[in-house]
Amino acid sequence: MKTIISPVKGTRDFYPEAMALRQWLYGELARVSRSFGYQEYEGPCLESLALYEAKSGEELVKEQAFCFADRGGDQIALRPELTPSLARMVAARQGQLPLPIRWWSFGPFWRYERPQKGRTREFFQWNVDLVGVESPEADAELAAVAATFLRNVGLMPSQVYLQVNNRRLVETELARLGVASEQRGMVFRLIDRRDKMRASEWDAYAAEQGLSASSIRGIALLLEDKELWKKSEELQSFFGAVKALGVEEYVEYDPTIVRGLDYYTGTVFEARDRDGEFRAVLGGGRYDNLVGDVGGDRLPGFGFAMGDVVIQLVLAKFGRLPTPRTASAQVLVTTFAASELNTSLDLARRLREVGILVEWYPKPDRLPKQLKYADQAGIRFAVICGPDEMARSSVSLKDLATREQIEMKVEDLAVEVRRRVLDPLMA
Amino acid sequence: MKTIISPVKGTRDFYPEAMALRQWLYGELARVSRSFGYQEYEGPCLESLALYEAKSGEELVKEQAFCFADRGGDQIALRPELTPSLARMVAARQGQLPLPIRWWSFGPFWRYERPQKGRTREFFQWNVDLVGVESPEADAELAAVAATFLRNVGLMPSQVYLQVNNRRLVETELARLGVASEQRGMVFRLIDRRDKMRASEWDAYAAEQGLSASSIRGIALLLEDKELWKKSEELQSFFGAVKALGVEEYVEYDPTIVRGLDYYTGTVFEARDRDGEFRAVLGGGRYDNLVGDVGGDRLPGFGFAMGDVVIQLVLAKFGRLPTPRTASAQVLVTTFAASELNTSLDLARRLREVGILVEWYPKPDRLPKQLKYADQAGIRFAVICGPDEMARSSVSLKDLATREQIEMKVEDLAVEVRRRVLDPLMA
Repeated sequence: MKTIISPVKGTRDFYPEAMALRQWLYGELARVSRSFGYQEYEGPCLESLALYEAKSGEELVKEQAFCFADRGGDQIALRPELTPSLARMVAARQGQLPLPIRWWSFGPFWRYERPQKGRTREFFQWNVDLVGVESPEADAELAAVAATFLRNVGLMPSQVYLQVNNRRLVETELARLGVASEQRGMVFRLIDRRDKMRASEWDAYAAEQGLSASSIRGIALLLEDKELWKKSEELQSFFGAVKALGVEEYVEYDPTIVRGLDYYTGTVFEARDRDGEFRAVLGGGRYDNLVGDVGGDRLPGFGFAMGDVVIQLVLAKFGRLPTPRTASAQVLVTTFAASELNTSLDLARRLREVGILVEWYPKPDRLPKQLKYADQAGIRFAVICGPDEMARSSVSLKDLATREQIEMKVEDLAVEVRRRVLDPLMA
Repeated sequence: MKTIISPVKGTRDFYPEAMALRQWLYGELARVSRSFGYQEYEGPCLESLALYEAKSGEELVKEQAFCFADRGGDQIALRPELTPSLARMVAARQGQLPLPIRWWSFGPFWRYERPQKGRTREFFQWNVDLVGVESPEADAELAAVAATFLRNVGLMPSQVYLQVNNRRLVETELARLGVASEQRGMVFRLIDRRDKMRASEWDAYAAEQGLSASSIRGIALLLEDKELWKKSEELQSFFGAVKALGVEEYVEYDPTIVRGLDYYTGTVFEARDRDGEFRAVLGGGRYDNLVGDVGGDRLPGFGFAMGDVVIQLVLAKFGRLPTPRTASAQVLVTTFAASELNTSLDLARRLREVGILVEWYPKPDRLPKQLKYADQAGIRFAVICGPDEMARSSVSLKDLATREQIEMKVEDLAVEVRRRVLDPLMA
């Protein structure tokens, strides 16, 4: 037996059913993004490695990015995330782009991770960013975009919710605990890993990083303080705005959330299922220096991203994954004889010209087989032009839902089909 | 001055205007693909290099594909074309997928070519394939999909048209001229290069390849014989079907067309502007062994692809490139005072809840500046809630097109805006 060439590990083939689902997701993302006044944009899939070295964080660049030298010797990365491209694009047109910038996009990304449930090496990501505004209310708008999406697709706040924290607040508390400022990046990464380790492992790992026992104890207490947000005016305003935006049921304070990327500076959030079965559904935060880091002037922003893999698992878990229609056409034009192929092509053309989606059965076959094909493909109407019809210059239209079949003049076909397809009540 | 990090050479940034144009193109491709009963699908962007080594042709694999070893040492290629992925996907589900397969897609591809007008290293491509049918009428359906697209976007047959030939016909003629069968692949590549060289250069190049002077003369005559198609029953049926499909104005025989890819076996076509100013707009052909070549059973097919770059140049040349609307929202909710941010967020929420696209002006600013912003962004309506309105628990709605401003109760806002946005005749 021959071996079929395999796909690359961690990639996915989108057969029509999977593609219809991806496009359903795209439609939901587009709807909520537009309802908040965001414009669609897109960056390239290839970027110079230097773009990520500035700020994305060591793990992402050194361990996870697909990197290579191109034929000209330049160091290229397949984008592992979009925010640095956004920053580069904004920097390149700074002064020309009206502020604020509200942009969203949905496209492919790559990370070299071990493929497992909820994780592929090639994945799609929804990105939403608001650049040029620095306020808790702007932060809250992004939380509302995320929460409104969750609500729109039917996920309840009792199932999936946003956990929010603020890095400035955590930094202030760390300073109070005596953690030196140069250690804080390390502590953020440490906190970010807490739910990936057992408590004893985490303590040992923290000590290895050079933290004192009292600092570790202090940090552990900090991570349990659900009231910590009250010390932050920023978070108080944030939660007020979240309420005005009508999504307070979906948004909660959580002291353990800091996010993994290095460039966050203020409020951060992620969405998780309450059972904690999956990785974060989405996550993001405020970055204040990113446009500056890629060569522009300082311009603050807030953005979040959602991968397409975990959200589908979560939707499936809660029975909210739709089964989109994949029917290829509204009408199947059947084919009677090899000598009459052009007759059926002509009938198909007549229907397309009035806007009908028409599939042509591309070879002569027994009629029952052709009708069965239409049934299985979810095509409701079949056009039949056999010898009887030919003799009368007519054509038959069969409704596979009602099994009704009517004969008409060829000239009347397009109008008749259009009436039935566009207005099912008339059928 | 700091240097802004550059994009990778040959890639494009899709700012909202460019993205709206790409989505307009996507919409046109989707419309014509669906009207012929094709289903949307998509392959991965990464494939193993081995997939292309089977059949894509030496130039594409050895000179143009972006290839690299991943962190696990596997040889990966950024897909330079989609047909091999299609063949792999079909082979993997052979026996399960109902035939015929009519699939289309639009996604990113990469080729390391010298960037120039009409050519980028990262580009988007529309792919349309009909697999599982082997007939001139099937070939004609693909030509009709392509021609219908050209007609739909407003390109006349006097501007852009399809040139058609058939490799089996050319092979028969080459055999008649005494060209050995093992030389025919080379001769196809030679013919494909003819319009890229001067006649004398081409003659010299042909002689270098080991062709006799009489063969070269014979081939040159062949390439001028516009009546050659009459020797091919296949092409006679093809042109008959093209006529039944109503696109005969767009389709012409051209003996010089053979296409560059190695896997074509029968009818091939490409679309060009009649002035010959640009590269081919689209191209494709019949492949009979591709599914077998990647490990499946023999299954014939026909496909074509169109890049997004040349078609945009051609549309621009003929004044058919639209300027899609990029307005971010239907309503701008203005912001009066720092103390009242949540009031405006609440008004924005009320409008979104009835399906209005709402942008929130995210900080207090002089009202004329906010209204100017709405004007420039193409947002027609502005919601104003200043101190006068606040005192009366009301809100004002300004129509920036008519300059009319009306005041109403906050509770009436959503209904009033909805009526005006959805039915402009009522405004």
